[in-house]
Amino acid sequence: MRSDGYLIGEADLVPLSLGAALLGTGGGGNPYIGMLRARELVRKGAEIRVIPLEALKDDEWVSEVGGIGAPVVGVEKVEEGGECLRAMRAVEEASGKRFSAVISAEIGGSNAMEPLIAAALAGIPAVDGDGMGRAFPEVQMTTYMIYGADVSPAAIADEKGNVVVFRNIIDMYWLERFARDVAVGMGAGAGLAVAPMRGDFVRRTAVPGTVTQALSIGRTILEARAKRRNVVDEVCASTGARLCFTGKITDIERRLEGGFARGSAKLVGSGAWNGSEARIAIQNENLVLWVDGEPVVMVPDLIINLELDTGEPLTTEVLRYGQRVAVIALPVHDLLKTPQALKVVGPAAFGYPELTFKPLEAR
Amino acid sequence: MRSDGYLIGEADLVPLSLGAALLGTGGGGNPYIGMLRARELVRKGAEIRVIPLEALKDDEWVSEVGGIGAPVVGVEKVEEGGECLRAMRAVEEASGKRFSAVISAEIGGSNAMEPLIAAALAGIPAVDGDGMGRAFPEVQMTTYMIYGADVSPAAIADEKGNVVVFRNIIDMYWLERFARDVAVGMGAGAGLAVAPMRGDFVRRTAVPGTVTQALSIGRTILEARAKRRNVVDEVCASTGARLCFTGKITDIERRLEGGFARGSAKLVGSGAWNGSEARIAIQNENLVLWVDGEPVVMVPDLIINLELDTGEPLTTEVLRYGQRVAVIALPVHDLLKTPQALKVVGPAAFGYPELTFKPLEAR
Repeated sequence: MRSDGYLIGEADLVPLSLGAALLGTGGGGNPYIGMLRARELVRKGAEIRVIPLEALKDDEWVSEVGGIGAPVVGVEKVEEGGECLRAMRAVEEASGKRFSAVISAEIGGSNAMEPLIAAALAGIPAVDGDGMGRAFPEVQMTTYMIYGADVSPAAIADEKGNVVVFRNIIDMYWLERFARDVAVGMGAGAGLAVAPMRGDFVRRTAVPGTVTQALSIGRTILEARAKRRNVVDEVCASTGARLCFTGKITDIERRLEGGFARGSAKLVGSGAWNGSEARIAIQNENLVLWVDGEPVVMVPDLIINLELDTGEPLTTEVLRYGQRVAVIALPVHDLLKTPQALKVVGPAAFGYPELTFKPLEAR
Repeated sequence: MRSDGYLIGEADLVPLSLGAALLGTGGGGNPYIGMLRARELVRKGAEIRVIPLEALKDDEWVSEVGGIGAPVVGVEKVEEGGECLRAMRAVEEASGKRFSAVISAEIGGSNAMEPLIAAALAGIPAVDGDGMGRAFPEVQMTTYMIYGADVSPAAIADEKGNVVVFRNIIDMYWLERFARDVAVGMGAGAGLAVAPMRGDFVRRTAVPGTVTQALSIGRTILEARAKRRNVVDEVCASTGARLCFTGKITDIERRLEGGFARGSAKLVGSGAWNGSEARIAIQNENLVLWVDGEPVVMVPDLIINLELDTGEPLTTEVLRYGQRVAVIALPVHDLLKTPQALKVVGPAAFGYPELTFKPLEAR
């Protein structure tokens, strides 16, 4: 094992899961159960090492892993724990390549924890970075896929022992389709490992430093709470997030559709937004925020609901009528704002062709 | 290549496809397009050799292949031709075993042709037998699976180049589920190859001689037509089939559901059945025949619709209002009538728990 990077200790897991929930922009699955599993591992002596992107050698093989399914299912259908590792092993077998590091598909939500667990179980380090800098609902929506990663062989595993290998897949959209269909068959919760990526490719295409970023956000939240400060203000101050709306949820519509949680939330304003109305569109994650009918923030930028009083990040499956929330926004990493990336993760890719992406910073 | 068995020549393909359509009991896909593909191969010099079950050596590896999907789709979505071969190759890669013979999952319908084509492309013989002695809609409904064949690794391939490997699957029902989901994603038509079977296992569990049987039935039909005899009578006389109903289709209900063609047909009687009514339940294949409300034939026995005048076997997707048909029945092979088999292919397995299987011979 490499000596560079740092170890994730037991005390880091709660702040990490809290920061990951925030970066999940409502989706990515609730990281709480993953946090408990990671804690069990650490208590048993497993070492979770996080290395910087720069530590990757050109010709080593990195595994991108993550849970796949509808986040709302993850709350009730607890993973067995070895899903991502079994998927990784199946990719190794099919590709004839051996992984020496693991990286997250998405830092947002439970997929911040999955790669750490898989890496610890495999006895290799996790990389400080991910393929989204947030959470997105579909497999092709990673910087790796956008910038040309191999699509196959990839593999998916469930908690019962089923392993399905996507041996030859013609493009990333077909991978998403097959992986989604099989994940739904597996009960809408499974571990996915995609094709081996070279170290130099990952260094160039991953969103850097996001494990550390999630840890830092989580610590900010916990510290603000401990000091009885306004958590939302502190998060905005330390991350550069913009406060876009405060108010109360008046309507929430959710349905499970093709393995996704789709729906929308309506809010009436309070404080500076007294008299205003907002709407948030959801596909696992928060996609677009409209205030008084105007699109204010949209994918790929991050739209995050925090509980107004506690600053607790709210995943879309726990949103409910009457909740008082602060909606904050963070600019997405530049790798996700190129024309090539916007084709895959811009508003049109999510069914909003009428919206032209305008970065948060430009507003 | 072995010298035993016999070669399928161009002149055999039409009778074979006709007999296979009859044994398809309404399903298994229309074998006409497969026949055209096989003819192309034969004209280009490919050798289609059929060997008897007894020619299999104990320790050789046999591949069970077949098309998977809704038959109604096969009419419009023509296979590229190499689907089953690519699936076989993926199973060889995943299992580390090399196939030396191919056997059909089901002799009924287009899956009579698929294994012959895959075998010819691979340069190995096809076995004179299959796993159903007819057609059934689901993957677990073969004698191989019923009598304990390995479930994985299996593989599925489409015409675009996608190949998905079912690497570790916990039981045959999960294989059916995953294979069906992926087949639907592939456009409801794909080639499936299941796990390698040993020669001694295939000798013990396959329904023997069904390629030859299909050929013989097809020749009977063509000969009766050529001699302007009553085709339905000749088929019954030569196969031992029982004539169960003659009449006209008055109602046909069909829907595509979870990758299956489901529905039912209603008929009013003519000739000896004047004044009677019949109903046939369908899930890709004909499942149950009721005459005047009484179940007369039911799965796993074979229920076959022949066009009354021409004796042409009618697949469920070409049934239409006003067609005059003879409904004939054939007893299924004994391997499919054991208690173990009836759990998988008896009336209850198809959603008719109120029906207790009573063999055709006992009526």
